[in-house]
Amino acid sequence: MDAPEITDHISTQFNNELEDVRNHVLNMGGMVEELLQKALKGLLKADSTLCDEAILGDEQVNQAELEIDEECTRILALRHPTASDLRLVMSVIKTITDLERIGDESEKIGFLGKRLIGEGLLKDKLAKNIKFLGKMVKGNLREVLDAFARSDGEAALNVVKNDDEIDEFYESLLREQLTYMMEDPRQIKTSMEVMWVARALERIGDHTKNIAEHIIYLILGHDVRHLEVSDHKNFEALVEKLHKNDPK
Amino acid sequence: MDAPEITDHISTQFNNELEDVRNHVLNMGGMVEELLQKALKGLLKADSTLCDEAILGDEQVNQAELEIDEECTRILALRHPTASDLRLVMSVIKTITDLERIGDESEKIGFLGKRLIGEGLLKDKLAKNIKFLGKMVKGNLREVLDAFARSDGEAALNVVKNDDEIDEFYESLLREQLTYMMEDPRQIKTSMEVMWVARALERIGDHTKNIAEHIIYLILGHDVRHLEVSDHKNFEALVEKLHKNDPK
Repeated sequence: MDAPEITDHISTQFNNELEDVRNHVLNMGGMVEELLQKALKGLLKADSTLCDEAILGDEQVNQAELEIDEECTRILALRHPTASDLRLVMSVIKTITDLERIGDESEKIGFLGKRLIGEGLLKDKLAKNIKFLGKMVKGNLREVLDAFARSDGEAALNVVKNDDEIDEFYESLLREQLTYMMEDPRQIKTSMEVMWVARALERIGDHTKNIAEHIIYLILGHDVRHLEVSDHKNFEALVEKLHKNDPK
Repeated sequence: MDAPEITDHISTQFNNELEDVRNHVLNMGGMVEELLQKALKGLLKADSTLCDEAILGDEQVNQAELEIDEECTRILALRHPTASDLRLVMSVIKTITDLERIGDESEKIGFLGKRLIGEGLLKDKLAKNIKFLGKMVKGNLREVLDAFARSDGEAALNVVKNDDEIDEFYESLLREQLTYMMEDPRQIKTSMEVMWVARALERIGDHTKNIAEHIIYLILGHDVRHLEVSDHKNFEALVEKLHKNDPK
């Protein structure tokens, strides 16, 4: 499937360009992590300044996406990368789309946070659930960025696995919320907003998982999207392949 | 920003390959439209067979994405496209991601449809709203695929504009639903599911808008993402540029 030739980096400049792109992606990842952190903290501590920062910061993330995208286009046009270099560029193009969407969802949490602050503090139980879900999602985002930095396929595979747990917790949170709403209809409006927050977190989890899949593609040289990693056999087979680090 | 040279298609084969990719994207678009249509019809007519078809069909969409993605990688590796050819490949890579997500959301509507069918038919008013939102979203998806087929930037710009109306209707639908829930807490569960359907439709609208932006990028050669098209001045300026069809 790969290009016939294996690129020998004759040009140090090209190497530097690829390294730059990687670093820019990591910077963008850091920005996005900060937005998410601010939005969640703002929401849970009823600090609307933090929520505003999460909202305003999204602009910077969008800008970063455009710049990295342009960098990739330039590399494709001028350097004609092949094999693993091409895979790197392809996976960067996709990764930044997911990072940008994580920024959007964090911005959304910022807006929801401000609305929820207007309605008074979250009830303990609600806050606890959101905090827990947020912690899982932030942890997995951290892990996927580390996996990207180290090109660590096994760590990326773990991220995919962790997302199953995030989804499970999210589903149970939704069921619980529904019960609250039925018990106390006056809480419906707040409950709905909490559910949108949970939904945004769950989506951030999905984008994080997508990024993990891009990393695995980068390493293995074939696509693992739409592959059920929760299927034990698939998982084992992938781990084995990653151990061999055996690009097709 | 573009590559220095303008590609003269010396190779008919290369031209054919690009044409093939375009056609495969349109085919994938057609698949996705069909899934959405089936999911909505299944939901509104309480026909769970149609819902099942929407759910099962998503696999085919995923497969199409992988195949087109591979085609693009191969073209990048072997043909080294530049200028507008490179932009075509880049916009295809992004478009199929959005199409695939539209497939996912349609699958989700299929699942929600089956659950809602289990709870009995939707109330008239609810069904009417979902039907209306669905019609707007389907219409815009059709329009963006046409715009892609004809490389029609103005049509693409219209799609971006239409999405504002979709978002407005979605917001009003949510507000209405909240009122119902407060009036009749026994309806909360059903109402929630209707809201998830509306949410999925709104997200399909967003992906449709993304595709429109990829088309504008393809034609104009610069990125219009994150640009407020609802801002009248921006819109006018873009229309003028598209008239000139003036790649930077």
